[in-house]
Amino acid sequence: MACEEGYGGIVYLNGQFLPTPEAKVSVLDRGFVFGDGVYEVIPVYGARPFRLEEHLRRLDASLAGIRLANPLTHGQWRECLLRLVAENGAGDQSLYLQVTRGAARRDHAFPASIHPTVFAMSSPLEEVPGELRRGISAITVEDIRWKLCSIKSIALLPNILLRQEAIDRGAAEAIMLRDGLVTEAVAANVFVVAQGTVATPPKSNLLLPGTTRDLIVELCASHAIPCEERDITAEQLRSADEIWVTSSTRDLLPVIRLDGQPVGSGSPGPIGERVLLLYQQYKAEFRAGTRD
Amino acid sequence: MACEEGYGGIVYLNGQFLPTPEAKVSVLDRGFVFGDGVYEVIPVYGARPFRLEEHLRRLDASLAGIRLANPLTHGQWRECLLRLVAENGAGDQSLYLQVTRGAARRDHAFPASIHPTVFAMSSPLEEVPGELRRGISAITVEDIRWKLCSIKSIALLPNILLRQEAIDRGAAEAIMLRDGLVTEAVAANVFVVAQGTVATPPKSNLLLPGTTRDLIVELCASHAIPCEERDITAEQLRSADEIWVTSSTRDLLPVIRLDGQPVGSGSPGPIGERVLLLYQQYKAEFRAGTRD
Repeated sequence: MACEEGYGGIVYLNGQFLPTPEAKVSVLDRGFVFGDGVYEVIPVYGARPFRLEEHLRRLDASLAGIRLANPLTHGQWRECLLRLVAENGAGDQSLYLQVTRGAARRDHAFPASIHPTVFAMSSPLEEVPGELRRGISAITVEDIRWKLCSIKSIALLPNILLRQEAIDRGAAEAIMLRDGLVTEAVAANVFVVAQGTVATPPKSNLLLPGTTRDLIVELCASHAIPCEERDITAEQLRSADEIWVTSSTRDLLPVIRLDGQPVGSGSPGPIGERVLLLYQQYKAEFRAGTRD
Repeated sequence: MACEEGYGGIVYLNGQFLPTPEAKVSVLDRGFVFGDGVYEVIPVYGARPFRLEEHLRRLDASLAGIRLANPLTHGQWRECLLRLVAENGAGDQSLYLQVTRGAARRDHAFPASIHPTVFAMSSPLEEVPGELRRGISAITVEDIRWKLCSIKSIALLPNILLRQEAIDRGAAEAIMLRDGLVTEAVAANVFVVAQGTVATPPKSNLLLPGTTRDLIVELCASHAIPCEERDITAEQLRSADEIWVTSSTRDLLPVIRLDGQPVGSGSPGPIGERVLLLYQQYKAEFRAGTRD
């Protein structure tokens, strides 16, 4: 099927490794009728899932947030995901996993007997296009999402509508503001730089605790780059010298236009370039096996 | 499968009528990975879908809200749903339909080529248990949902968590408050009565425009029962003489305890009983074919 292009590989579904077209779920799956599930996206470098423990811990937190027991141990996840990566040709991949509350008679209340659906897929990790590395455009939008955004839920309709709005307005990302404060981008965390100091919003129920975000905060600390976790107002966003969006599959992208206006000099800034380099070195060491 | 109990019947999926266990969708369906779809629940009396045009118009509005073209005309929906009702033994049923943006490579942005997934099922309409008719308990909760609740989206995880919280606290419903004002219940609209006047929150992006709600407003108007569409504060909710929750499959249920305190006299109130009677008469005439 043309619509499944890009996922010609093998997926994991409830204990089985299957070609994508054979991987189907019941129409009664609570993922399909309720968005009742959570997910993770994990980059894979040289066949090794990056920051896997951090992703599995966040999965635990998301599952706790929706009150669903993790159907697999971390060891079982590791085994399953490593086999999936191998089935799909190893190398660099983007690994996706999802757990839903399974199929049951449709009722909002949790089913008496729960059989979670476990699904994972992996596809070649696409190189970030050079034009994105040279800086993207973003728009600001109202954060219309629910109030438990620290849960990495599959109920992503708000994110989809906001991302599409960005695309329709000629931008690559939408940066969300709630009550005048930056929360995050549609599928990325947000950093700003002002007067040489990096800042990103503090963790709360209103944004996803990004694994890339956390690593960047760590890298700043270990390289004496001033970095604060603090509220960022709309005004501070607009007047920033640099804005970055960070995510597992795209690392750090500089935002060089915001709502049609140049950010800082209108080119990627020096601190973002330095942090991206540190991040890429870290990844390269991981890929080479010289770092966990 | 035990977990599919209650849906032993025939469902509709993308042009086919199938036994439920055979009805499966791709793991790449955007309903399954994103909650990217909308739905309707339509009661069926004497094999006739009740307020079908109203439901199909609301479906159009929901689809417009997520920017997805309706894959079927109203005539095609009618034909499909009537056959589904017949396949499942006619009589009184609860009809469910859902449209998602279909299967595609996972990406937040809308796919270039869209093949929506159309799914419908129908099960016998369960009689509302007498104990619910005699009044239910509800709790108040913060409305943690997104800001486009007038779209009847399948991304219902917030509703699920709030409904389960109600159940865990010994209540049947959760009434949501946003910024101190009543929006709706988890799967129902809310009415209050004070000093002989009925009130329900006005339509907005923060609540679903219920078809049962609308009919009750109409019935009040045509029977000279004072009824206002206006904001209801938490305080007004707590001091109301009567509270009702209304929905397609349960009509009108009186709430007789709120957060553990009796509502009014602690029994179903006279205005609610009168409106329920009017509503049931209306349904009976529809079932008998003497009313459209």
